[in-house]
Amino acid sequence: MVKEGLIYNGNEKQVFCTDDPCKVIFRYKDVTTAYHGVKRARFAGKGVLTSQISALLLGYLNRSGVETHFIEMVGEREQLCRKIEIIPLEVVFHNRIAGSLALKLGVEDGFKPANTILDLCYNNDELGDPLINRDQAVALSLASYQELDLMYDIVRRSGKLLTDLLQQAGIELVDAKFEFGRAADTGAIIISDELSPDTCRMWDAETGERLDKDRFRLDLGDVTAAYGTVLEKLKNVL
Amino acid sequence: MVKEGLIYNGNEKQVFCTDDPCKVIFRYKDVTTAYHGVKRARFAGKGVLTSQISALLLGYLNRSGVETHFIEMVGEREQLCRKIEIIPLEVVFHNRIAGSLALKLGVEDGFKPANTILDLCYNNDELGDPLINRDQAVALSLASYQELDLMYDIVRRSGKLLTDLLQQAGIELVDAKFEFGRAADTGAIIISDELSPDTCRMWDAETGERLDKDRFRLDLGDVTAAYGTVLEKLKNVL
Repeated sequence: MVKEGLIYNGNEKQVFCTDDPCKVIFRYKDVTTAYHGVKRARFAGKGVLTSQISALLLGYLNRSGVETHFIEMVGEREQLCRKIEIIPLEVVFHNRIAGSLALKLGVEDGFKPANTILDLCYNNDELGDPLINRDQAVALSLASYQELDLMYDIVRRSGKLLTDLLQQAGIELVDAKFEFGRAADTGAIIISDELSPDTCRMWDAETGERLDKDRFRLDLGDVTAAYGTVLEKLKNVL
Repeated sequence: MVKEGLIYNGNEKQVFCTDDPCKVIFRYKDVTTAYHGVKRARFAGKGVLTSQISALLLGYLNRSGVETHFIEMVGEREQLCRKIEIIPLEVVFHNRIAGSLALKLGVEDGFKPANTILDLCYNNDELGDPLINRDQAVALSLASYQELDLMYDIVRRSGKLLTDLLQQAGIELVDAKFEFGRAADTGAIIISDELSPDTCRMWDAETGERLDKDRFRLDLGDVTAAYGTVLEKLKNVL
């Protein structure tokens, strides 16, 4: 596999094409952003940690029968992935209500409801990534009802698999953000973005300590140390 | 039926109890508010028009097999209604995307999608009446999934009935806001707020002229004249 030109240069990741038209290389950066890019910092080695955590979690989903874009690591912060056509929607899985959702709904941060919550967001910087619903997504031609059903099913299965896996590792999965694409090779809808403490809230199951991007959002410090803890705990069970 | 004490004094309506514990009297005011109460004005006779339009539309739904709180007019701006326990949710039915939803989704005002859109909002002034979804409503114990299914079914049926009725009257129903309560007499979930140009967008089917509260929101003038037109057109078909 030969790494070729840069095709996407995001805040936290770069994507390069390869000599295979159906494969790309994701490179995880050390940059972290929050609040729609308003807050920004660089943590040396962060990208190595998120890349490795993401590889473990996406690989676990692949082996559990949930298709993701991840193929294999090809460097300490580089992953060979299936190329996809982006679907500009996020589905967020919540075991607890934390962060901006808690503010929006007027509940205490970390409130644990009796049910699991799935949110749908429209990935659109200009509009501020608004929460939308299925009817609105279809009206905007972002996906069909059938595709949305499939995405919701993938998120429910993945959320349960990751919750159980992380529990074994002594980590509580608070929430997890999933992004999707249509695979260039088969056309299937697959998970197509990282799963790491940058995109999921993860708490130490015993102490409740935050081991995720909230350490950066809330200026709690020790960001890379916390991410390192997540990686070590995961390696114990995978 | 004896009108007794005031139990609710809202911006646009008052509610009085009666000597029947399962019945109340709604009194429609001349005040109009918009943008969460920030914009406010008084139009002499507006409450008489919205009360009469609402009586026609709610009465039509009652006769069509959709239960509402409306029983009968008991004055030119007063209605005898079934008492309900409020469910703090709104379901909005959209044939077109207009107003704040168009801004939020980044489409032109009045965009007509191929599908019908239903929105769920949490009626909570402090939180700014946010758009929420079914999982969030259940998490906040506002309603059960079964109750939400029922409310969505009522909105789909009512939206279709009102779209067809208004079309006969030469009016296009752009959107309609529905509020619900649990009836004090039977416990059933019923429609429990007005349906009028104050809560629904209505356009002249031929000219596209706005005949609803957007005349006030957008300072187009002739608010009561437009509401009067809606009432006259409705009387032609009811």
